[in-house]
Order: sequence, then C-alpha cells, then structure tokens
Amino acid sequence: MELSWSEKFASRVGRVKGSQIRGFFSLTERPEVISFAGGFPDSDYFPREDISRAISELIEEEGRYALQYTPTEGNYELRTFIARKMRREGVRCEAEDIVVTSGTQQALDLISRLLVDPGDPVLVEEPAYIGGMGAIQSCGGEPVGVVVDKNGACPQKMERALSRLEKQGKTPKLFYTVPNFQNPTGYTTTEDRRRKILDLASRYNFLILEDNPYGEICYEGTIPPSYKSLDTESRVIYIGSYSKIFIPGIRVGWIVGAPLLVEKLIMLKQSADLCSGSLGQRLVYRMALDGYVDENLSRIIGLYRQKRDALFYNMKQSFPPEINYTRPQGGFFVWVTFPDYYPPAYEILTHAIERKVAFVHGQGFYSNGEGTHTARFSFSQPSVEDIHKGISRLGEIFQEIRRQEPVKTAINR
Amino acid sequence: MELSWSEKFASRVGRVKGSQIRGFFSLTERPEVISFAGGFPDSDYFPREDISRAISELIEEEGRYALQYTPTEGNYELRTFIARKMRREGVRCEAEDIVVTSGTQQALDLISRLLVDPGDPVLVEEPAYIGGMGAIQSCGGEPVGVVVDKNGACPQKMERALSRLEKQGKTPKLFYTVPNFQNPTGYTTTEDRRRKILDLASRYNFLILEDNPYGEICYEGTIPPSYKSLDTESRVIYIGSYSKIFIPGIRVGWIVGAPLLVEKLIMLKQSADLCSGSLGQRLVYRMALDGYVDENLSRIIGLYRQKRDALFYNMKQSFPPEINYTRPQGGFFVWVTFPDYYPPAYEILTHAIERKVAFVHGQGFYSNGEGTHTARFSFSQPSVEDIHKGISRLGEIFQEIRRQEPVKTAINR
Repeated sequence: MELSWSEKFASRVGRVKGSQIRGFFSLTERPEVISFAGGFPDSDYFPREDISRAISELIEEEGRYALQYTPTEGNYELRTFIARKMRREGVRCEAEDIVVTSGTQQALDLISRLLVDPGDPVLVEEPAYIGGMGAIQSCGGEPVGVVVDKNGACPQKMERALSRLEKQGKTPKLFYTVPNFQNPTGYTTTEDRRRKILDLASRYNFLILEDNPYGEICYEGTIPPSYKSLDTESRVIYIGSYSKIFIPGIRVGWIVGAPLLVEKLIMLKQSADLCSGSLGQRLVYRMALDGYVDENLSRIIGLYRQKRDALFYNMKQSFPPEINYTRPQGGFFVWVTFPDYYPPAYEILTHAIERKVAFVHGQGFYSNGEGTHTARFSFSQPSVEDIHKGISRLGEIFQEIRRQEPVKTAINR
Repeated sequence: MELSWSEKFASRVGRVKGSQIRGFFSLTERPEVISFAGGFPDSDYFPREDISRAISELIEEEGRYALQYTPTEGNYELRTFIARKMRREGVRCEAEDIVVTSGTQQALDLISRLLVDPGDPVLVEEPAYIGGMGAIQSCGGEPVGVVVDKNGACPQKMERALSRLEKQGKTPKLFYTVPNFQNPTGYTTTEDRRRKILDLASRYNFLILEDNPYGEICYEGTIPPSYKSLDTESRVIYIGSYSKIFIPGIRVGWIVGAPLLVEKLIMLKQSADLCSGSLGQRLVYRMALDGYVDENLSRIIGLYRQKRDALFYNMKQSFPPEINYTRPQGGFFVWVTFPDYYPPAYEILTHAIERKVAFVHGQGFYSNGEGTHTARFSFSQPSVEDIHKGISRLGEIFQEIRRQEPVKTAINR
C-alpha cells in the first residue's frame, strides 16, 4: 500500500509552527551578512581556554561519571549550587526543588506539557518570546496577550483580560513572562507591577512562568526582585539558563518549582530524554564553583555593554527621528518601531537582506497578528565595527523611504 | 486563593508513568549493591584519555562553534557521517534524512509526539523496552502486544492482532521494535520475520519504528539486515545511538526517516530543546571520523563478551535447571524466566536486595500485565568478579526456594 504521510501525523502536529526566526537563519548565517537577527551569545567571548582546562581535569578526576548517564533531575552538586545561587537572589529553595533541563527551551516544553491542555487560555506578553509562546501553543494553549510597555507587562490590561475570560467561565493556566530585559522588547517589569501581577495570580488562581535567561546581563542599575522571590504561594515557576551567561553548546538550564511540580517534571523529562548531558552539567558546576562563571559574566557584561552603546550611537546617527527604539539596561535586544507610513517591517527586511543586513521583523512575537511595523535587533553577535556598518546601511534605506523613492533593490540598481 | 496543584496539571500527565527501573535506581546505585539492573555501559570502558585529547583539540580549533548553539537538526558534518555509516549498512540516505537527537529517548519522544494520537493502537513487542513504550503511552498510544520468542517478534501473532484491530475498524500507527539483542529479552528478530513484518506493514499500512542501540555490540555471528535497509516504501523510521557504543554523557542519538517526517521532527525538536549540545556532536564526529569510535567498539565488544560469558557460566553453576534464561549474541541483556511455582519475581528481587544484589523484575516490560515470573539481567555494569558474587548469592535464594524454606530475610536470619 502506498504511504501517505499526512494521514499518519498526530493531530497535535498541526499546532506546531516552525519559528519564523529559524526560517531565515540559513540566509542570515551567511558570513557576509551582518546579522542583528539571532539572540546567540558572541562566540568570541567564550572562555575557551578555561573551559578546555576544566574539561581535562573533569575527565581525569571524574570521567567515570562525567561521561555516563546522570539522574533525570540533574547532577546533585549542580542542583545544590543552583539552589544556593537562587537563595542569594531571595528565592527559598533547596536542591530538591531544582530540575536541570537541556536549556530553557526544554524547560518551556516540559512545563507546557505538564500544565497546558488544548484550549487552555495562557496569558502571554504582547509581544512575547517566540520559543515560549511556541511551546505553549504546541500543547494547545491559546495565548491571551497582555501588552508590554516600558514598565513591563501591564497589570491593568491583564486584569481586563482576566475579567473577560472570567465572563466566559475561563481561568488562564498561567502567565508566561520574561520580566528582565525582555525578549523581544528589552523592557524590564517594575517591582510594583510584579507585585500587582502576583496579586492577580492569587485572586484569579493562575501560575506564573518566569523565564529569566538575561537578568544577570545587566549593564547599569539593578533589576527588581524576581517574581519567584516575592512569591508566597508557590505560584511561580522559575526558569534559568547558563546559555547566555556562560555557553549554550552544552545545553544547561534549570527549573525551580514546588515539590509536586518538580516530581511530575522529572517524570516528563525521563520520557523526553532520560537526562541531560552529564559532561555539560559537571563542567558548569566545576567552573561555577571555582568562580569562573561569575568572572566570565563580569567580563562579558563589559563587552556587551560596548556593543549596546555602539548600537545606540549608530541608531542615533543613522535612524531618522520618527523611528523609535527601546534603550534596555541589559540583555541582548532592542525593539524598533517604524511609523505607520513606512512599509511593513518584513518589506524593510527584504531590502536590508539585499544589502546584507538582517534583523527579525516583529509580527511573529505577537499572538494577535499585530506588530507589522516592529522589529527586533540583537546586538549580541555582530562586532562593534559591523554594528556601525550594518546600521549605516539601514540608515540609507530609511533615507530612501523618507524621500518616498522606490527603495533600491539589487536588481534595479 | 490557595493553590491546588492537581487541578493545574494537563490531562496528558495522567498517562505518564515513572519508570519502575528508575524508581529503584536510588537503591541499586548504592555502591555496595551488585547491580544487574541498569543497562548503562561500563564507565571503566570509556576511552577517557582519547576523549580528553579530542575535546582539547576541538575547543582550540573550533571552539567558537563547539560551544555555541547548533542547528536544530544537528551538526551537518555529523549528519553526513551518520548517513555514510547507514549507507554502509545498506540504508539509502543522505545527511538531509538524519536528525540528531539528545539520545534515543528523545528520538522516541519526538516520533511519538509526531505520530501518536490519544487512543491510537501501537504494536509493541511483548515484552518491550519500557522507555519506548512509555513515550508512546505518554502520547496516548495504546500498546498492542506482539509476543517475542527466540526468533524475535512473531509475524503470525502480529497478523492475528492486526485482523482483530481491523474488525474494530482500527489500524495501528506503528510497530515499535528493538530487533537486535532486544531490550529486555536479548533476542534478535530473524531476517525472514523482518521481511514478513515489512509485508504486514505494507498490507495493513502502518509504520515501523526500528530502535537499534545495541546492534553493533555483537559478540559472535552477524545480525540480519535492518528493517530500514529492507524497506522499499519509506515505512521504517530508524533510531541509532552513540550512548552504548561510545558514551552516554553527551546525549547523541539520531533518527533516519523520510523527508517529510524529518521536516516535522525538526519543527518538534525546535520546540522541545532548540538543539542538542554542539560540543557532544562535534566530539562524536571528530572521534568517529578518526576511527576512535570503531576502535573503542572493537575493544568493548571483547570486554562485554567476557562479562556475558561470566554471567552464563555463573548462571549455569548457580541457577537451578528449572530457571530459564536467554543466551544473546550481543547487547547487554539476559532475560530470565522463573517457574510458576516460584514466588513472583518482585518478591525474589526483594530478597535479592537484602543480600545486596539487584535486577529488574519483568512485569514492567509487558503491556498486558504478564511477566510476573520474569526478570531482566544486564551484565554491562558489574565486574566479572561481582557477576560471580552476585549470581552466587541469587543461587542461595533459589536453593532456599527449592527447599520450600521460607526465604531468609535480613530480619529473621
């Protein structure tokens, strides 16, 4: 009998979308393209020699364990270390409250699988991180957007959404948020708003999924206390990661949650991949314990700050005043808003790619189809020199748009 | 409002079971316990020095990539290498047909999520590998057992199951099989049966999920051609792994499948963990290309063969003749069947653990609740000396059972 694949796929597959970002990575990863697209850390900043030395020691001293399977919930020493780190940030937790995951994306996937049933409303930031929204949607969650402004997610708007849902007899399962230097806007939610949103969570009985990969990459000032540290009802599930502050190539993230949640997450993780890589977990533990991870963090904060400042400087020089952009105090992302009379951002992107510059147009970060005139710029990967070049080239495009000229393409030029 | 966790969990969570095996790892991993329980490779066999040297070179020469994110589908060079390896085994495929996964468990999870809807019947071996069956069940698949005998899964019995399903208007989505040195029985499916099962797959229009972590660990003779190499209709999805033939601590497995399947699997993997660890993938590629992986494999085959022979020898010496056990030509597992008049295997296990010996009782490998008088013994971890000690201690228990004495426990002894 001839095989028809489409009839074989499970119905859940229809809910899974390929990321728009991934879709054009093949294009933007050509070395001649200056890319503000991906939120990858700068590979030049990886502490390669220190890592190489640590791995040699690790394999010599504990290779029997570092190369073997490891418990599903993660290496106990690393979990103990992470719990101590979280306690320093005001979160009451022990090693037993931590699950090590293969990066934050696996954390988002496991938590969505644990909590989200098809048709469940889930509060998300508008705009929100695509990978988090995707994990929720692939479990059938229906995003309900809460607008993010310069003070973060807005509790008033959230309350309006909650009472609308209430009238339909619905409660959201959770609110998914990146409260610090948000992906994609770069905004940080104020402490006042965090407290108000926690109150709403308690009143309306939903959970908060706090995703914090960037909080430690802070260029000036301080960040507010985490939702998790303000949480008195165990409503907050916290996700952290070593991908941005250290290296992503070993896939080490973690979840902090209530005991019953952790127990179920371990069961789900067992079925998902048995365990995360032992070598990577022990490497992180060894280097974090010896202070290398913190040392590395101080160093890269200085370096990323230079890039951010270069981006701001060049945007100021080359972007016309009608283009707005955020000025985040940390993280990797700047959010750009074009005026309505500009062409949509995906069109601008097409012209940019012809001039060998890439960014991400913003619509994919919205659950409601808005954001046609927005874009995410990441300054983490290009060099200061390339930031200058790339933004200047975009400046030329904007000048052409302002002069109402047809934007020059590779063909008609 | 007070939080009730149970009302927050998604309905799919009820389908996820903690593995019985994992359940008592905490017990069996006490160093004083001689464990035939886990199917872990022997950590003493890891080529630690070679790995350490390769990682140093890797980080020096390509650290910018080895420590960075990697494409979701996996490192291209590794996929090219795996495709070449598969072609040598008679499978027509290219790098584009390969997805690298975080071990075979992630492959099982992604494939189940892609193909299995709640209520779908899925043919499984009876007994079957728990992790594979668990992945299928956690997606709502309903296992339909096909008895395995010394020639592997039985096509006649499969056909009977298929016509029973047909009468109910049902077709299984797939048949999940470990055809070589099966986990848990150690049996290998003959070529003749593979061909017959492929015919059934074509006639009844289902897929075959071929899971082959042990095929290369072959102590004598040869294994039959893979289902995938005999497959003319792209019905077979093949899963392989470097965990047993090399090391598990970096989580590198792979899937070979039809292009449309691979495309969807990449989308699912993107949502599951973005990508597997780059360092591990590049390490495998480098060491496999340089011939270290094959060299290591030849060496460990010799070592595991000694352990297997020690197990056979000691079982022959210490097990009474009414206890049957399989004599696999490869892999890690021996399947033991106790006579009906013995106490159930879990009871024997309880006594064994009191004497500091562990194995896995067999019931968890059955989808139909059978197997009360069966057990899986893995010879991969204990030393030859411990195999002797452990089996002798079990021999004492069996002698007591035969003498119809109450089995001595730590308390009444």
